[in-house]
Amino acid sequence: MHVDLNSDMGESFGPWVMGDDAAMLQLVTSANIACGFHGGDPMVMLKTARLAKERGVAIGAHPGFHDIQGFGRRQILGISAREIETLIAYQIGALQGIAALADHKVTYVKVHGALSNMACEDEAMADAIASAIRGVDRELAFVTLPFSKLVPAGEKAGLRIISEVFADRAYEDDGLLMSRRKPGSVLHDAPNVAERVRRMIEEQVVTSVSGKKLRVKIDTVCIHSDTSAAVALAHSVRAGLETAKIRLAPFSQMPR
Amino acid sequence: MHVDLNSDMGESFGPWVMGDDAAMLQLVTSANIACGFHGGDPMVMLKTARLAKERGVAIGAHPGFHDIQGFGRRQILGISAREIETLIAYQIGALQGIAALADHKVTYVKVHGALSNMACEDEAMADAIASAIRGVDRELAFVTLPFSKLVPAGEKAGLRIISEVFADRAYEDDGLLMSRRKPGSVLHDAPNVAERVRRMIEEQVVTSVSGKKLRVKIDTVCIHSDTSAAVALAHSVRAGLETAKIRLAPFSQMPR
Amino acid sequence: MHVDLNSDMGESFGPWVMGDDAAMLQLVTSANIACGFHGGDPMVMLKTARLAKERGVAIGAHPGFHDIQGFGRRQILGISAREIETLIAYQIGALQGIAALADHKVTYVKVHGALSNMACEDEAMADAIASAIRGVDRELAFVTLPFSKLVPAGEKAGLRIISEVFADRAYEDDGLLMSRRKPGSVLHDAPNVAERVRRMIEEQVVTSVSGKKLRVKIDTVCIHSDTSAAVALAHSVRAGLETAKIRLAPFSQMPR
Amino acid sequence: MHVDLNSDMGESFGPWVMGDDAAMLQLVTSANIACGFHGGDPMVMLKTARLAKERGVAIGAHPGFHDIQGFGRRQILGISAREIETLIAYQIGALQGIAALADHKVTYVKVHGALSNMACEDEAMADAIASAIRGVDRELAFVTLPFSKLVPAGEKAGLRIISEVFADRAYEDDGLLMSRRKPGSVLHDAPNVAERVRRMIEEQVVTSVSGKKLRVKIDTVCIHSDTSAAVALAHSVRAGLETAKIRLAPFSQMPR
Repeated sequence: MHVDLNSDMGESFGPWVMGDDAAMLQLVTSANIACGFHGGDPMVMLKTARLAKERGVAIGAHPGFHDIQGFGRRQILGISAREIETLIAYQIGALQGIAALADHKVTYVKVHGALSNMACEDEAMADAIASAIRGVDRELAFVTLPFSKLVPAGEKAGLRIISEVFADRAYEDDGLLMSRRKPGSVLHDAPNVAERVRRMIEEQVVTSVSGKKLRVKIDTVCIHSDTSAAVALAHSVRAGLETAKIRLAPFSQMPR
Repeated sequence: MHVDLNSDMGESFGPWVMGDDAAMLQLVTSANIACGFHGGDPMVMLKTARLAKERGVAIGAHPGFHDIQGFGRRQILGISAREIETLIAYQIGALQGIAALADHKVTYVKVHGALSNMACEDEAMADAIASAIRGVDRELAFVTLPFSKLVPAGEKAGLRIISEVFADRAYEDDGLLMSRRKPGSVLHDAPNVAERVRRMIEEQVVTSVSGKKLRVKIDTVCIHSDTSAAVALAHSVRAGLETAKIRLAPFSQMPR
Repeated sequence: MHVDLNSDMGESFGPWVMGDDAAMLQLVTSANIACGFHGGDPMVMLKTARLAKERGVAIGAHPGFHDIQGFGRRQILGISAREIETLIAYQIGALQGIAALADHKVTYVKVHGALSNMACEDEAMADAIASAIRGVDRELAFVTLPFSKLVPAGEKAGLRIISEVFADRAYEDDGLLMSRRKPGSVLHDAPNVAERVRRMIEEQVVTSVSGKKLRVKIDTVCIHSDTSAAVALAHSVRAGLETAKIRLAPFSQMPR
Repeated sequence: MHVDLNSDMGESFGPWVMGDDAAMLQLVTSANIACGFHGGDPMVMLKTARLAKERGVAIGAHPGFHDIQGFGRRQILGISAREIETLIAYQIGALQGIAALADHKVTYVKVHGALSNMACEDEAMADAIASAIRGVDRELAFVTLPFSKLVPAGEKAGLRIISEVFADRAYEDDGLLMSRRKPGSVLHDAPNVAERVRRMIEEQVVTSVSGKKLRVKIDTVCIHSDTSAAVALAHSVRAGLETAKIRLAPFSQMPR
């Protein structure tokens, strides 16, 4: 039994620091690197890719809306599917360029924030994202939320689908994430979160907020990195999985 | 006898249009595409790459400082060589991502504006640029100004060096471009420019403002695209070369 | 009988030109100056304010979303009313700072693009805008679309309400603008537009797309400036009004 | 005997936090608020102005180059004096707009980073800054580095000159700041810094790195806010001055 642990990284910007990437890179197996549109800049991207390489952590592109001040969390309407496709391709390519300097390799794409949330429910946007990934490099895996529009979009495009659960986010009955604006949407108790993750992996089941059990294949678990408690939470999750003899490794190193 | 004609393209931004790319793409053989840092945006880049593909025009990355409002023409000090390397790699990669959507291929790099001017005289910056190109893809050609620091930097990095002259810019005795701020630095008379270019190609010589003859290998001629008279000038230059039976083709299709 | 003619101005950015402000400033009586968030930059703002001053044209702040690439035309969700208030106050203040250099005075505020469209239908956003205007300077007039949420918001805030019609835009039966995405939403025939404007002023009535007559007080008429035909259209409208002996002057010079 | 303590504030941006403004606002008497060009955004500006108002702390505009990623610390060449003037006026006005929402008042201007460093040695830039301040509001005080070009520029413009020393920066013999790149340019030992400041105020003398004593009028002392040790250093400086019975108050409340 094995699973991947992923986290968003490289979200510092210019003189501003976000998260403790060095600590997180000792705990996760895949790093989703911001590509300069909602966070990160070329220097931050390089440092993150370098550090990931040193630690044996896989890297993926984490593209978002072009909205630094809003950190890619604001929905922007009126962007065509074609434009979505170009901004995804641009960001993947940019990280590939930087990764080459770090002698590392981009192996997957996971979309960030509002762009991801919108695409999870919008087929045209989901297709545009899948099309961009396929266009740039069809060997790139596509990290997707089960039950979202991302899954069929990626399948249609012939991409390798990586199925992701969130360690600390509550789920609605339809399998989508409960909005951050609702109370109880983010879980904070580290032991509880660790236990929940272990059970999700062992059972390959996600339990919704109302207690509904949703069967899913789980390839990777997302751990947030941008809160002060992130490192402690990641420690707990990792320790819980190791105790349960669940092997941790980048999905990119796993057989399909 | 043959030569390449290159021009800066894809410098529109959002709702703002710059230059007549469609007209220029019928006259040149290589298009230097802005990568979103000093001009261009993902949609503009895609449109330009698509059109270039249709017309059989080669494309290159045209990276610059991250300075949209200043169009990359303002010198920015205090950027380390390492940071120069990352911002070049980022922009090349970004265009490669976009080019893949257009089913086209980036075959060279030509640096833009103030970043190019500074690197022409600064060995560390020139080396950083060459290192970025080599890091991303050592098959990319490096378009360089003869007599500048770019040439030895590219040679050290093992890159294919493409030697460029400017159709409408006056040269100093040391072979560098006369500053745009000096009177007479930009030539405007189309027949004169066309005649000058023809002679430069036939003789492989650049004549400086004081009359000094500088022997150079000329692989490509740059024609500006951002002035109202640009299309007419390009027409003249192209017609002059065709009359003289000088073959026009992308240098990327020429034997080394 | 008198009316004001207003147009958006100062929408150039860095090296990119939009519209023919010099020509439009000879035809309109009020210039809505972009404040650097969706178009314009400090130098463009100064040039526009200077030219307006020379021509006796009143100036107003034309604030929008912070979205240069999208020209403020993309709806951005998830911005709180408080944040709307700050970004409006920031932009008004910025133009006041620039206007002081031009020895001119900002006398009104007209909101741009998507921010305006959203606020026309959203009471909290409309209130935030009115609150920002009142907070910065309660003497500033508020240019509003009749029948929109802007009118009661401005009234509650105690602002002088300026009622605006659009020369070349079709209206829905509820008095709001027909979306630009619908066919027929923008009128292009200059003589027709001129005749329509004259009649609107004389009758103080707007006729909707279905023929419904909506009684409105009309203080100012908006003429678009960003199309190639804008200057010709403005000429026609102005000539039509002058022929009908309708006096043209900034509303800011009119008795309340 | 009295003096003002000033510090840079409001340098957070979007989701990124810089410094501990709440703590610093209990220690200083004047807050230099970033205006969104090198740090800060409208919401951050409002929060800072509000908190300063609550604490009785005076506020000033802290304008810089338009360079968020570089935090205004990179020199940008090729910006005309006229453009400097507009970008200063824009930022002062923007903060005035925001301050009005907080029911506070901007009473001075202190220029940030590379723009300040360049203007200290460049008469045309210094004059452009003074001209912008005078143009926007001639009642604004101008915080200047003694011995720099800012002083005569402000005097020519008829501005109230506020003379500033830096608590933790070493001085060259000519009275200008030692470059941050030189070793020993920034002092870190809190008790030493506190003692040094006390003596500077009591003697109205700055001692250069070589021991030269430079007589200056000292109206305000700058304490840095962007390092982790900033709050502790500010505590020491404040305690040292209080112990010496030197009264602390905003210079804007002092008789000229």
